Order: sequence, then structure tokens, then C-alpha cells
Amino acid sequence: MTILVVGSVAFDSIRTPAGSRDEILGGSATYFSVAASYFSKVSLVAVVGEDFPESHVAFLRRKGVDTSGLQREKGRTFRWTGEYGRDLNTAKTLETQLNVFASFSPRIRPEHRKLPMVVLGNIDPTLQRSVLEQMDGPQTVVCDTMNYWIERTRESLLQTLARVDILLVNDAEVRQLAEDSNLLQAAGKVRKLGPQTLVVKRGEAGALMFHGNSVFVTPAFPVSDVVDPTGAGDSFAGGFCGYLAAARARDEAALRRAVVFGSVMASFTVSDFGPGRLGELTFTEIEERFREFRRSTSFEDPDRAGPGG
Amino acid sequence: MTILVVGSVAFDSIRTPAGSRDEILGGSATYFSVAASYFSKVSLVAVVGEDFPESHVAFLRRKGVDTSGLQREKGRTFRWTGEYGRDLNTAKTLETQLNVFASFSPRIRPEHRKLPMVVLGNIDPTLQRSVLEQMDGPQTVVCDTMNYWIERTRESLLQTLARVDILLVNDAEVRQLAEDSNLLQAAGKVRKLGPQTLVVKRGEAGALMFHGNSVFVTPAFPVSDVVDPTGAGDSFAGGFCGYLAAARARDEAALRRAVVFGSVMASFTVSDFGPGRLGELTFTEIEERFREFRRSTSFEDPDRAGPGG
Repeated sequence: MTILVVGSVAFDSIRTPAGSRDEILGGSATYFSVAASYFSKVSLVAVVGEDFPESHVAFLRRKGVDTSGLQREKGRTFRWTGEYGRDLNTAKTLETQLNVFASFSPRIRPEHRKLPMVVLGNIDPTLQRSVLEQMDGPQTVVCDTMNYWIERTRESLLQTLARVDILLVNDAEVRQLAEDSNLLQAAGKVRKLGPQTLVVKRGEAGALMFHGNSVFVTPAFPVSDVVDPTGAGDSFAGGFCGYLAAARARDEAALRRAVVFGSVMASFTVSDFGPGRLGELTFTEIEERFREFRRSTSFEDPDRAGPGG
Repeated sequence: MTILVVGSVAFDSIRTPAGSRDEILGGSATYFSVAASYFSKVSLVAVVGEDFPESHVAFLRRKGVDTSGLQREKGRTFRWTGEYGRDLNTAKTLETQLNVFASFSPRIRPEHRKLPMVVLGNIDPTLQRSVLEQMDGPQTVVCDTMNYWIERTRESLLQTLARVDILLVNDAEVRQLAEDSNLLQAAGKVRKLGPQTLVVKRGEAGALMFHGNSVFVTPAFPVSDVVDPTGAGDSFAGGFCGYLAAARARDEAALRRAVVFGSVMASFTVSDFGPGRLGELTFTEIEERFREFRRSTSFEDPDRAGPGG
């Protein structure tokens, strides 16, 4: 099953306690596509400027990503500069240059319109809907968003959410969207806005998934050396959606495994700057880390436990 | 198997976003004892002043806690005043009055000296060793400590740790103790100081346990309404040790279940001020939450997942 993903492709300049990098390949759709590519075919829809090198396009193609939807416009590529302190959980944005991304209008090519899974990356909710309107009834609509759109374009975002099956956001965004500080209550309210399934990304606290009447709780895979957290959430989304597309399933058991594959992909991403490590994995390494995750989190029911035992 | 626990019994005054309480029953040994009492017999060694009401002693006795080691001294009971902001992860200490706790010298009664499991709460490491010296070769020594002792009494703490089997601390303390900011590396260094088993409490990020060659990773049980996090770590330790004492085991499988029972007890504690909710549980509620934890965290190996699937 091929995934259509719409989002950003960018140049990132990053400072972390482990070092710094200037103008490396970044963007939500980049991390998503590379992570998902290990599981499934991915068609990428994004915009870059005249300064975007062919070598980056070639890198994506080597990962099996279909780049025919990568629009090249007059001007410079989207640039982001960010810094992480010793607490690697949150990035401080130092500079954002939208450049060609400011006037991005996703055009879905005819051969992509029947794809069964659409992933709406973190862009203006009006553009997210324009993608859906170009598609021919996708089975699964996955969506990401952020505080910026929740604050400034709430009404438009609510219209998009009504058409979303799976929403992937962080805990602050769930609370903000529901206007409720109680995370579990907020999750219930957000699901009433449309998404049947809600996945809450919590950084080093792991992830929560709400689906049907059940909650799935999982820790983050412990990473020995976090070098650069940029792209962790997008890699999570890529592993999650990639697995679902490969499994051709959306039942509870598949969704839970998808969350774990998401965590696995994020754990590779954070161990290097940019999509470096993420881009050079083998599927065997991914499966091995999944099994390690399982070994590290499993426990059995007690055979002996009782009061005053 | 009866547990001997040495630690603090206090009056806590607490402000959280959910409200405030003045001079309620608190202290590490209180939370520990009440949490452990659902699994195992507990003998408490601590000090209180002349102002400590009989009703609190009666509450502990109703939970089956042996209070014969509760020393009553001339003066006032230890008092702590703390405040939590919207981020409930860390308490800001507003006032500490050590009172009778300042000159606490734990005296182990003859009938307690042969107890097989000793829990050294967060007190001066020299006092922790004085407890061990009064004991008759316990099978299992469990220890807690904090940044204060790591900074000011490192040499003494290292002497204590050499005699400890299981160390329970938070992630900042592991890093500080090992003088290594990499948590996984720091854990390895700390275990070389003595403790075979290291349990790292991570608040809402859950817990990590290092034992043998394996790592156990578990999320925190998601709590709908966190009212007061005070005592969560001590309740975790109480559930952890209480289960191990009841199971009479310290193998990997028992240790993993103990971590989950610790998380379960902490999840009850945070849903009320002080040991209110913790004190009125039934063992059936504890078992039910353990099973709920299991249902909420389990996932299976993939049956279908592959590149380009």
C-alpha cells in the first residue's frame, strides 16, 4: 500500500549539546518519508527552491521514495534554525525562513489521486483540506498539526479534523485543542472532533494511543546517546504509518505494533544529526530493535502476590 | 517476609494546582509503609515529636504496620512545606523544619534485627550504615538517596552503596552519582558501586530497571487527575519492595512485576492529597490496576511487516 505524504522539505541548522550542523536536509516530510520507506512505498508532495541540490533528491530516491510530487519553485528552500539545551525535549527556534514554503500549494498528480493512505503533515489546515479535495476517497487520512494552527486557524483546523481518521500530536497540543488540561479527558474531546484514533507523542515519556475503548501506553526506547531530537516525531509518524500501510490493517493489534515501530524509528533518528542514521538502516536492524523493545517492556502476571504474603 | 523500613515521618503542607493541605501526615517511611502494607508485613523505624497525634499511629497500625520502632522524642515532628506548579513533576520546597529528625539516630529493636529485607530511606548515609550494623545479615538491602547526600557526603554514601543490593533513585541522581550525563552509561557506573539492581524512577516518564544484562522499561500508569505527586516515589518503593517480600523472590521476572506494582501504587497516591487514597485501597483494586496496566502496555510481534509490503 503506497502512502501519499504532504509536508515540508527544508534545510535545518541545528545546535545541540553534542555539536552543530548547518543547512542539512530536514523537514517533516523528509523524516516521514525516509522512516516510512523501510515498510512501504511513499509518494512525497512538498516544495523546494532552486537551491535544493540534486544529491538530496537522489538520497530520497535511493530510499525508494517517489519524488515526482516534489515541486521546485523559483526562490530559496524553507530554512529552520534551532537550538536544544541540556534538556533535549524542546527546541528553541532561532530563525524560520519560509521562502518557497510560504506560498506552497500542494498539487496532487493524477497518478497519486487514488492512493489509499494520505498523510497530512503539519501545514495550514486549509491546504490540508485542499489535498483531500484532490484525492479520490482515501481509506485512511492521517494528520499532524501544531500550536500555531490551533491558535490561529482553529475553525479551519476543526473542518480538517472532521475528515481525519488518525491524529498524531503531542500532549500539549491535545490539551490546547480540547481546551482541557486533563490529558485523558482532552483525548476524549479531541476524538469527538473526528479522529477515531489519537496518538499522543510524549518525547522521552513515550506515546499514548486512544482507539476504541482502549488506551495503549508505551515508553520511549531508551537511547544511550541522544545527539539531535529533530525529526523524532516525524520519524515516529513514518514508522507508524509505514507499518500500517505494509500490514494493510488498522485494528487494535496492528495499531499497537505501529506505535512501537514508530518509537523504534524515532530512536534511530535521535542518535544522529538530521536523517543520517535513519537513512542508512537495514530492515533487520529495525526488526531487531522491535524485538529488543518487546524484551525490554514485557512482564508477566504475578503468580504469587497477596496481602501479608 | 517482613520488611524493616527506616526513614522519615513528617507533617507536610502542600500547595498544588488542585488545592492545598496543611500539616497532613507525610514522610518517606509513611508512604513506603502504607504502600508495602498491602503486600507484606512492615516494621517502621522513624522518629516523631510530642505533637504527633495518636490518630496517625492508629492509622498506620490499621494498615498492619508494626509501629513499635517509631521513636517519640521531646520536641516537634519534622515539617515540610512544598509547592507544585502546573508542571507537577517537581516540588519547590518552601520550608523544611527538621525538628526531632535533625538528631534522629535509628535504634533497631532486638526483635527486628533478623528481618530479611531492610529498606534504607533517604537519610544520612552514615545513619543508613548504622542501621545495617545493627542488623543480623539481611538478605536484601534496598536503598534510596538524594542529591543532598550525593553532593555533601559522597564518600560516606559510597561506603553505604557498597552494601546495597537494590538502589532506587531518579534519573538526575543516577547521573549525579556517576558524574556522567549519559543515563545508560551512568547506570552501568552506579551498579559497579555495589547495587546489583538499579531502579530509576522517572516520574511521568515511568521507570527503568537495570538487572543482570537486561533493561526493563515501563511507562507510568496514565492517571486522569494528578492531585498531589508527594509520596509517589516512596509509594513506588513500597509497592516494589512489598511485592518482592511477598513473592520471596528477586529474579528478573519478579523484579519486573515489582516495578509494575510500584507504578500501580504510585498511580493511586498521586490521585489524592497525602496518603488519603493510598490508605483506603483494597488488594482487589491493586490487582485490577495491575491487570489494566498489562492490558494497556502489551503488544505482539508483527505477523506482517516487511519492506515495500
